Amino acid sequence: MKLYDLTLSGNCYKIRLFLNLIDQPVELVPVNLFEGEHKQARFLAINPRGQVPALEDGAFRLGDSQAILVYLARRYADSAWFPLDAQSQGRIAGWLSFAANEIHHGPATARLGKLFGRPVEQALAESRALSALKVLERHLARHVWLAEGTAPTIADIAVYPYVALAADGGIDLAPYPALQAWFGRIRALPGYIGMPGL
Amino acid sequence: MKLYDLTLSGNCYKIRLFLNLIDQPVELVPVNLFEGEHKQARFLAINPRGQVPALEDGAFRLGDSQAILVYLARRYADSAWFPLDAQSQGRIAGWLSFAANEIHHGPATARLGKLFGRPVEQALAESRALSALKVLERHLARHVWLAEGTAPTIADIAVYPYVALAADGGIDLAPYPALQAWFGRIRALPGYIGMPGL
Repeated sequence: MKLYDLTLSGNCYKIRLFLNLIDQPVELVPVNLFEGEHKQARFLAINPRGQVPALEDGAFRLGDSQAILVYLARRYADSAWFPLDAQSQGRIAGWLSFAANEIHHGPATARLGKLFGRPVEQALAESRALSALKVLERHLARHVWLAEGTAPTIADIAVYPYVALAADGGIDLAPYPALQAWFGRIRALPGYIGMPGL
Repeated sequence: MKLYDLTLSGNCYKIRLFLNLIDQPVELVPVNLFEGEHKQARFLAINPRGQVPALEDGAFRLGDSQAILVYLARRYADSAWFPLDAQSQGRIAGWLSFAANEIHHGPATARLGKLFGRPVEQALAESRALSALKVLERHLARHVWLAEGTAPTIADIAVYPYVALAADGGIDLAPYPALQAWFGRIRALPGYIGMPGL
């Protein structure tokens, strides 16, 4: 199994973290986005969307970090990471949407502007980041994990990276104690690994 | 089962459409967003995020249109709408992310600005809409349905509404023949219903 990867991408880290948590080996293939390697024909043949992460498992190829988490959980992980009952699946899907929308357009975009100097709407991204952090803080003040009462799921892994990296986007995480406690629980999981900035 | 609903919302229509396709009865509870009913205590008790659609099925409550599709498919639909094998689940999750990110911030946001006069970045939303339409056109030129070769899934239902409503956002769909043919296949499904603008 190959993961087309960028060390500094929170979306790629999300997959590296999950693979390590479930003790699944992977070959990392670095893609140099800073030199535009993701828009060249060789990579577009792997992922026509030109984005990392992209996963190659035999003949099967898949992009989008949320989608890759779902695939890996169904294929390789203990079912507790992605329980099959309708209510769990619905709750987890809600947090995967939250990662794709609110987290991507909030803290992840704020970080793109601040850390990498990309042309983003910085004020809008920061305001969206604060809204997302409030939603999470309120939820985590009453729940141990995002989607299930008893154990972490791919919902936690999908949301965690760009929230934990929010300081890279100039966002202060000090006012969010429940969030910080949740960071601590994730970091205590067997197999946890970090990334630059964490 | 109750669906907290707004007739003109493409995200609410998405759920009404799916429920009709799987012949599942529902009680529609209108929420008047134009009068701020979604930010009042009575509705926030149903969905703390203050958004429609929200589903209530006995004691179980769920927001987010993608999450509701997942829940309904697992709970009430033939498994062809949401096959359980890892590759199908991965592909479908990718399109649900696409609905939550690219479609929401593209054609759905362009429509919010143009049809409802909301303060959005209209040019950015239109440019994102065109990128999303190109991705879909290229994919549908070679596939009958978004995620599976043989039958529609919740991926098609999640992506369809705001793409089909793109004209409401000032976007011309004429240059996308494969997209239009896919619209035709969706509209020919037994149980299909439309909404204002379609």
